[in-house]
Amino acid sequence: MSARGIAILGSTGSIGCNTLRVVEALGHDRFQVIALGAGRNISKLAEQIAGHRPELVSLDSEGSAAQLKAELAKRDVPVPRFVFGEAGLVEIARHPKADCVVSATVGAVGFVPTLRALEAGKRVALANKETLVMAGELMTRAAARSGAELLPVDSEHNALHQCLRGETRKEVRRIILTASGGPFRERAREAMASATVAEAMQHPTWNMGAKITIDSATLMNKGLEVIEAHWLFGFDAAAIDIVVHAESVVHSMIELIDGSVIAQLGVTDMRHAIQYALTYPERCPTELPPLDLAALSSLHFEAPDVERFPCISLAYRALKIGGTLPAAMNAANEEAVQAFINERISFSDIPRTIESVMDQHRTAEVKDLDSILAVDHQARAAAQAAISDLTTPARMNVA
Amino acid sequence: MSARGIAILGSTGSIGCNTLRVVEALGHDRFQVIALGAGRNISKLAEQIAGHRPELVSLDSEGSAAQLKAELAKRDVPVPRFVFGEAGLVEIARHPKADCVVSATVGAVGFVPTLRALEAGKRVALANKETLVMAGELMTRAAARSGAELLPVDSEHNALHQCLRGETRKEVRRIILTASGGPFRERAREAMASATVAEAMQHPTWNMGAKITIDSATLMNKGLEVIEAHWLFGFDAAAIDIVVHAESVVHSMIELIDGSVIAQLGVTDMRHAIQYALTYPERCPTELPPLDLAALSSLHFEAPDVERFPCISLAYRALKIGGTLPAAMNAANEEAVQAFINERISFSDIPRTIESVMDQHRTAEVKDLDSILAVDHQARAAAQAAISDLTTPARMNVA
Repeated sequence: MSARGIAILGSTGSIGCNTLRVVEALGHDRFQVIALGAGRNISKLAEQIAGHRPELVSLDSEGSAAQLKAELAKRDVPVPRFVFGEAGLVEIARHPKADCVVSATVGAVGFVPTLRALEAGKRVALANKETLVMAGELMTRAAARSGAELLPVDSEHNALHQCLRGETRKEVRRIILTASGGPFRERAREAMASATVAEAMQHPTWNMGAKITIDSATLMNKGLEVIEAHWLFGFDAAAIDIVVHAESVVHSMIELIDGSVIAQLGVTDMRHAIQYALTYPERCPTELPPLDLAALSSLHFEAPDVERFPCISLAYRALKIGGTLPAAMNAANEEAVQAFINERISFSDIPRTIESVMDQHRTAEVKDLDSILAVDHQARAAAQAAISDLTTPARMNVA
Repeated sequence: MSARGIAILGSTGSIGCNTLRVVEALGHDRFQVIALGAGRNISKLAEQIAGHRPELVSLDSEGSAAQLKAELAKRDVPVPRFVFGEAGLVEIARHPKADCVVSATVGAVGFVPTLRALEAGKRVALANKETLVMAGELMTRAAARSGAELLPVDSEHNALHQCLRGETRKEVRRIILTASGGPFRERAREAMASATVAEAMQHPTWNMGAKITIDSATLMNKGLEVIEAHWLFGFDAAAIDIVVHAESVVHSMIELIDGSVIAQLGVTDMRHAIQYALTYPERCPTELPPLDLAALSSLHFEAPDVERFPCISLAYRALKIGGTLPAAMNAANEEAVQAFINERISFSDIPRTIESVMDQHRTAEVKDLDSILAVDHQARAAAQAAISDLTTPARMNVA
């Protein structure tokens, strides 16, 4: 068997780096890195190029390319071919030698390249849940047409994929996503508004990027996952439940029509899900420490509190109404999270901003890529307007 | 689809009664009760015959038959054909109209009839774990020859069967049986010897018959399950682990070579496992309440304490040495449990008796049914001798 080609969109992020660690552990005779797409972390990218020698690298700008060339020269590493921006990511995603595209960019930037990878019939290991939230219909339709496989890297969906392996779809009554509950699981309702960026960044169980960490604090991450699960596995909103599970050991569960529950458990290391997505249907050994339930001693479960975490209800509402509303919600969320990180709005203003954008949005059917991108654009503008309203002195005085 | 025929060995016991409740819930157009085998609970058996109208009924004696006829006459129910003893159970197990034989007798009495059912190519829903402990090799060989399916009804093995559905055998690193820990999970080591029958009968999570409840208190039940798992799924002793899980919600787990753990969870109601064994590979709806993890709030796990529960080590020893030793162990256990129930020996004397019989036993290869029955006979005699030693006044004074 020849090595399978891998392309990574977002190679210097958390998932990207872990993907390269998985590839190293599995060996270059199994997987060969063909192309890497990254943003501005040039020194890390230089390291990755030195270790994996991809043919093609996508960057944000010519300026980054100059920097990267200098870094590679220092290391005496040959310079790969460079491509830029979204077009560059698309070229990576469609690279003829790439069998599997790992979609691990943050937010909406991975949207078009991921769609192109699916259209080209690639296996897509999807860590970018926003992609499915924005345009699950387009993505799944493209995959169905080309025969592309969509393998989830999100630990919850990866768990569901594992739980569903031996089951017949019509015999599954519901799926149950577990949620760590984030850093504010036990925070009093009245103290939610005063949550700081530093507090929100303290995720109890997973070490991830900034956007997803804030999403985990608002539980919008779980809301996005509900929508993602709908598109990956075909369950309606009513058949997708959330249970808060602080230890993040049970990664998710399915309930069968006979009442039996199948769960997938593991240590909280993304390399498990990444490897599964790369090697499926085969499973390969890992050197990661096994789960030791006796050492963990206890696992806890509780119902999610939708009053303290209104983002959950917003996401269910978006899924139930469907059409372009999830894309609008997603765009509003990205803008609101960024405004929170920039300390322009409070923690509670995140759901407030999203709700205001959703209330204004005129939901239409998802026609094509352009209509989705137009909705994304409009919703971001609406979110910015809502954020400005929230941050004007007059409003501040009222609050 | 015509109704599938069911024969039940041990219909008035806990599993037998629950099997009939499952059959009622699924409907008589799906399953039809062809034959019932029971012991001395005549009034319950009369009720079952009235409800399910089997063609054939096996009883322990002509005396029971006379009683039963009187009970049926009272209810105005036609009298089925009667058969008796082990030969009667064998006739039930081989009934041409029985597609599935539920093997739910207690202890060794179900051994020969279950073997005959497997030889006849029936699906066997196996609740009688002693059968596999005594002669797993003969049983699995018979099933392989005839093409009979062996579906476990024990909740742990049923869980493992469910977990293994989507997996490839060589990709499973180990199986993990959960154990409730029984009523003495938290009892101090020095207080084990004084445990009474009444205390041992207080199982924390499952409501079962006397023999299995005492086995659950000594954890020999888990030991027997380790051996059962070996024969059902082909794992060596080193790849079968036990974790104590007081709530009995996680019924068992498998660990894959990639470190992923798949678990089956459910409410503690045997009807789940029974229905699964009857309807597999299909799953059918149940009206049993679903599992509510949020309401349960927490699940606990700990390593088993082999010092307080030496029966675990005895069972692993029997499995590792193999041959006729597990049959000898099983026979000694049955005798010791009965002597404990009769208040002839103390709780700690149960493992003491078994160990003494195992120490004396000359392990041989399992040749055939007769050799197993001979070992069973010898080991019971040896156990009785050991029990007598333990209960002689001289020994009592020393202790």
